[in-house]
Amino acid sequence: GYELLAAERARSNIPVEKLQELLLTKEAIERKRRILDILKSEKVFDKSQNYFSGRMERFERALAREKKLQMLKRKHNWTQEEFRTASELIGEPGPYGLHESMFRITIDEQGTPEQREKFGKPAADYKIIGCYAQTELGHGSNVRGLETTATWNPEDKTFTIHSPHLTASKWWIGSLGRTANHACVVAQLMVDGKSYGPHPFIVQIRDTKTHEPLEGIHVGDMFGYNTMDNGFLLFNNVKVPHISMLARFSSVDPNTNKYVRRGSPSLVYGTLTWVRSTIVMQAGAVLARGVTIATRYCAIRRQFQDRDAPEWEKGENAVLNYTMVQIRLLPLLAATFALHFTGKGMMNLYQENQKRMNEKNAGRDGPSKRGAGPEETQSGSDILADLHATSCGLKALSSSTAAEGLEVCRRACGGHGYSSFSGIGPWYSDYLPTTTWEGDNYMLTQQVARYLLKSARSVLANELPINGAFADFVPPPLDTTRILSTFRSRSEIGCAFDILGSDCDIIAAFAWRSSFLTFEALKHRDEEKKPWNDLLVDFYRLSKAHSQYMVVKNFYEALLSPDTTSKIDADTIDVLWKLFRLYSLHTLEQEGSEFYASGACSKHQIMLARTNAVMKLLKEIRPHAVRLVDSWGFDDWLLDSSLGRYDGKVYEDMFYRASELNPLNRVTVDPYPESDVLFRKIEGEVKSKL
Amino acid sequence: GYELLAAERARSNIPVEKLQELLLTKEAIERKRRILDILKSEKVFDKSQNYFSGRMERFERALAREKKLQMLKRKHNWTQEEFRTASELIGEPGPYGLHESMFRITIDEQGTPEQREKFGKPAADYKIIGCYAQTELGHGSNVRGLETTATWNPEDKTFTIHSPHLTASKWWIGSLGRTANHACVVAQLMVDGKSYGPHPFIVQIRDTKTHEPLEGIHVGDMFGYNTMDNGFLLFNNVKVPHISMLARFSSVDPNTNKYVRRGSPSLVYGTLTWVRSTIVMQAGAVLARGVTIATRYCAIRRQFQDRDAPEWEKGENAVLNYTMVQIRLLPLLAATFALHFTGKGMMNLYQENQKRMNEKNAGRDGPSKRGAGPEETQSGSDILADLHATSCGLKALSSSTAAEGLEVCRRACGGHGYSSFSGIGPWYSDYLPTTTWEGDNYMLTQQVARYLLKSARSVLANELPINGAFADFVPPPLDTTRILSTFRSRSEIGCAFDILGSDCDIIAAFAWRSSFLTFEALKHRDEEKKPWNDLLVDFYRLSKAHSQYMVVKNFYEALLSPDTTSKIDADTIDVLWKLFRLYSLHTLEQEGSEFYASGACSKHQIMLARTNAVMKLLKEIRPHAVRLVDSWGFDDWLLDSSLGRYDGKVYEDMFYRASELNPLNRVTVDPYPESDVLFRKIEGEVKSKL
Ligand SMILES: Cc1cc2nc3c(=O)[nH]c(=O)nc-3n(C[C@H](O)[C@H](O)[C@H](O)COP(=O)(O)OP(=O)(O)OC[C@H]3O[C@@H](n4cnc5c(N)ncnc54)[C@H](O)[C@@H]3O)c2cc1C
Ligand SMILES: Cc1cc2nc3c(=O)[nH]c(=O)nc-3n(C[C@H](O)[C@H](O)[C@H](O)COP(=O)(O)OP(=O)(O)OC[C@H]3O[C@@H](n4cnc5c(N)ncnc54)[C@H](O)[C@@H]3O)c2cc1C
Repeated sequence: GYELLAAERARSNIPVEKLQELLLTKEAIERKRRILDILKSEKVFDKSQNYFSGRMERFERALAREKKLQMLKRKHNWTQEEFRTASELIGEPGPYGLHESMFRITIDEQGTPEQREKFGKPAADYKIIGCYAQTELGHGSNVRGLETTATWNPEDKTFTIHSPHLTASKWWIGSLGRTANHACVVAQLMVDGKSYGPHPFIVQIRDTKTHEPLEGIHVGDMFGYNTMDNGFLLFNNVKVPHISMLARFSSVDPNTNKYVRRGSPSLVYGTLTWVRSTIVMQAGAVLARGVTIATRYCAIRRQFQDRDAPEWEKGENAVLNYTMVQIRLLPLLAATFALHFTGKGMMNLYQENQKRMNEKNAGRDGPSKRGAGPEETQSGSDILADLHATSCGLKALSSSTAAEGLEVCRRACGGHGYSSFSGIGPWYSDYLPTTTWEGDNYMLTQQVARYLLKSARSVLANELPINGAFADFVPPPLDTTRILSTFRSRSEIGCAFDILGSDCDIIAAFAWRSSFLTFEALKHRDEEKKPWNDLLVDFYRLSKAHSQYMVVKNFYEALLSPDTTSKIDADTIDVLWKLFRLYSLHTLEQEGSEFYASGACSKHQIMLARTNAVMKLLKEIRPHAVRLVDSWGFDDWLLDSSLGRYDGKVYEDMFYRASELNPLNRVTVDPYPESDVLFRKIEGEVKSKL
Repeated sequence: GYELLAAERARSNIPVEKLQELLLTKEAIERKRRILDILKSEKVFDKSQNYFSGRMERFERALAREKKLQMLKRKHNWTQEEFRTASELIGEPGPYGLHESMFRITIDEQGTPEQREKFGKPAADYKIIGCYAQTELGHGSNVRGLETTATWNPEDKTFTIHSPHLTASKWWIGSLGRTANHACVVAQLMVDGKSYGPHPFIVQIRDTKTHEPLEGIHVGDMFGYNTMDNGFLLFNNVKVPHISMLARFSSVDPNTNKYVRRGSPSLVYGTLTWVRSTIVMQAGAVLARGVTIATRYCAIRRQFQDRDAPEWEKGENAVLNYTMVQIRLLPLLAATFALHFTGKGMMNLYQENQKRMNEKNAGRDGPSKRGAGPEETQSGSDILADLHATSCGLKALSSSTAAEGLEVCRRACGGHGYSSFSGIGPWYSDYLPTTTWEGDNYMLTQQVARYLLKSARSVLANELPINGAFADFVPPPLDTTRILSTFRSRSEIGCAFDILGSDCDIIAAFAWRSSFLTFEALKHRDEEKKPWNDLLVDFYRLSKAHSQYMVVKNFYEALLSPDTTSKIDADTIDVLWKLFRLYSLHTLEQEGSEFYASGACSKHQIMLARTNAVMKLLKEIRPHAVRLVDSWGFDDWLLDSSLGRYDGKVYEDMFYRASELNPLNRVTVDPYPESDVLFRKIEGEVKSKL
């Protein structure tokens, strides 16, 4: 395989290092290399038995790794970034996972200074180890429906936490099962017989010395991931002090025994948007891992001769040369870039807006330092609402694309794809819940639709002559409002987009389809008064259409931006444009009937997109495929895959793992049905359990 | 959950027992119950630890189960059917798997009477335990490319089996890794320096006493399934006697040292068709398992209130009432029936044809006993070719539908779907390779296309006036020829199908689209002379289109057949017709642009199919959903799922499994990073390995 990959790499001029810097930044690359060296030198991080071990062993090893990681963090004085890099390289969810990602952040964001001192400090030192206990056996997405109660006791100024039914049991809570000694518990606040909805409480659940559960607490592992202790938790009237309720935004006044609210937690709302943008950007990288493995392997794997190959080319064909393999892998390769740039674009927008809002909050309500540029005429919170809705749609689209794409990659590898050693399957199953948490992908689409309907209503309400005489005096709308207005203003005239000849017409066609579906949905809801439930499928399609528009638009803008063009040579940018077209036209063709129905494209254009444009792009991108995946810069240690090795030594590595690392090969069985003996002989220390 | 499912069941009149008899037959149901009782009473079949154990433990237990099963088979004198039922109920691939399914069958089909005596007999008694070793590390689908050689030695009348390279290592071979002592090895036969292509050899690989590998043989487990020992195998010039080569269809004459062929192995070809038809029928049941679990759970799971629900219905809504859940699950429910009837239809056709061929072979070449009915005018082998091609396409379509559908079911269950206790995930991953073996699903589509192109060419060559004056004298064509001719004869006139008003017009529309795509592909290949490789994507679509046509047609015919109408009441048949329409129209809408492009439907019809017809069908089928899945008759023991329990006790069962069965809960960890202790205390016998 070595020469085959070398030949692939020789065939293309993509500057791998440069492109990698564009994707990841120079400093992230350097950081990764540095940390990788440290990890590789520690025996506890050795991955060679991961694929063979059972639950107990894997959990035990995962705990050892998490501990070692903490000690390394202290020793090397790692920043949070460095620590995150290390976690990513290890690549498995671990028992401290939710302590880092949710428990500490929630205290920071929703706690008072006093609470940050009391809980946050020891949490930073791992004296307190916590988790985030919101979901219950009976309720997940419907947070208002949670059953755990926190009842205020005026007499002794405490809360009583209680689980009234089995379905109130906290469930799925990462790090809770065996590891945490505290939990951030989301419970219905009850004051004076009245319910005030779900609020967060910091509750100690295990003794900090013995690590045994405290009285009134039933806690355990419910078996989610192998390497993480997702847990359950039931309270039998457990009393906690007043300080337990995280009180930055609301609290119970111990003197008046009244519920007090302190402003709206819009910061938290913003954080959600941020988290979702991260998921979008990560989705690109997650998928890129699968695409890297499959592309490298399919460049090495040879199977059959090409039916029409000339006599002198009678060797077997690399399966990556078959168009049926290309059509599965190359659009996904394009999607990795599309999602990456989209996530990045979202995060930039978000950060800019936060900055602007902070500036405003700092008292500059008039023209800001940056001058009354067009952004300023739009209020920051409107933009936040727009960003929030978009991030919901994009989270759903991108995590579905990544999850489903990984399975396509796995299958493209034929039989060997099914082996754990491919590295795709285990990675896929760890990633899967991303489609469900942080908002179930199907349900998020309702939020996107709601926002689009609202925007469409306001476009209808004050129909502005965008292209008219007063254009200059009209505040420039948000992008969503803009495309809806444009559609509206041209809906009589119709459109004519040259999707095969012009990149910006592609964007316009996606915008047109999204707008068309928005007004269709609006008609169903507002004019025909259809029930909300009858429209969910339309909403789902609408959200998908709008999110796809966002992706192609972000990809397009990223390729035009000086940030890209200044870093990369023209030939490479040209290849990136081809990826842009492949992603866009392949998507367009897949969703052909919507584009057609909206009038954005003709039947003929859609057919040409498929039979000509896409097939041609596959051919043009094919020679660069290996270098393009190389640019994602995944280290072999991270990939942990026989098929995806950088050096192409696929078969040697598979054979080594199977014959040398595989513990079952230490066993001689007794194969005959009449004999009760199962394992006759076991070399080494493996022990029979039956 | 109990009352909720009871209420669901009370709301529909579907006669569960009757429908189950139609699907499975009375005797299969009775057989299953009888065998289930036996299995449940044996401790070794207890499933409660399956989800927690590691590879070694699972394999050991799987071996114990296989042995017990053999002993039970002997004790109760089980038929092969009864034995298969037992295996299905246990529901995991086991170490004897390939011995039963491939090794013994290959000897039977390809061996001479002498070989059946020598190898087949002791194999039946499990003195010889075998596997089927075809695939190699370097070659799977391309069987001609296998590298293992079997060289004829004229001097001592033996063959030398040899693996020239690492990539020649047999790979993925089920039952080989630890269990088998013999293998049916497919190797390139070399006689006198000339290669005669791959042939099967029975080779002993382990000592029957010590079970150690024989000299020159390197064999081991390569880690595929947890409960099965897929293995690798390398030969270093191993000599085997003349009788090793399975010689029913070809052999080396030991006297002349010449290669001799004895007729074509069309029986084997037929067997492949049979195996694929089985996969189609099983795909229905495989998917039904996931649909059963998800439907029952979504009928119990309550989340949110309906936004438009009237005041007096303010409880939480069963998620199965959300159209966005229905559109994911109910078309899959329809698909389970569609695939089942299609598989059954294929198998009937195949059996009839075999019977006819046997009769012919028995000397009745003229009008047979059954009279010169129309079937007789078509030669059996043409029908076999048609069946073979169709079975390829249907195998691909049905196994992809089942595999992808299972993941849709899992995701429909939200967070709990991700838990192993849902029973869907583990089942999905065991099923997945079905999309790759017995012909990779993507590659099979080339065979379908090749057949369709051939048929289209012959239609073009002797354009018959199907509706003309001579219709009665013309031999009635195969169904494929029929639809292609019809399309051809009307291609100038066009068509007008009332897909929303007439069920038989639905079938015609599917036939039309398939024919349209066939002639399009033919034009690309024969007129435009496009390379084969450039057309693979078109072929894939064509095969899918044709297979979908076969499915709707088989479903349609099954509902009209007296076999169905005599067994089931009219109301239930009415519901089955709704499932037929849901499957067909949902498929049609998904593939809208092809139907539109072919002219089979108008844009308006496709839009109506989605917004009106499909949404209406969902509403109409919804009340029957639980009883419809009940009709598949899966026992709780088989499902092994908390979410899919017949009695609806979802939460109780999840909690029980997590808290009582889960071995990690016997462990108290030391959670602090500074401490090297991992597991502080372990109740019972669990042992730390680090
Ligand atoms: C691996 C993993 C780790 C997790 N870690 C944590 C953790 O650390 N802490 C924590 O608090 N939680 C955690 N969770 C829980 C997770 O956040 C929830 O599972 C998730 O929010 C989904 O909620 P649910 O399971 O209740 O889905 P449900 O709401 O029950 O969804 C079931 C189905 O109904 C559909 N549906 C529901 N409502 C509607 C509606 N109104 N309209 C249309 N369709 C609807 C959904 O689309 C879905 O198909 C974890 C989950 C997993 C899988
Ligand atoms: C769990 C499991 C159990 C198995 N058990 C056995 C067993 O007991 N005995 C045994 O002999 N084998 C067994 N196999 C092997 C199995 O039959 C092969 O893996 C299967 O035939 C696929 O072949 P491959 O892996 O070589 O795929 P490849 O041919 O290498 O396919 C790789 C990719 O290339 C594509 N491709 C290849 N050729 C072409 C072409 N001409 N045109 C277009 N695309 C192409 C494919 O679609 C695929 O995406 C098993 C496999 C698995 C996963």
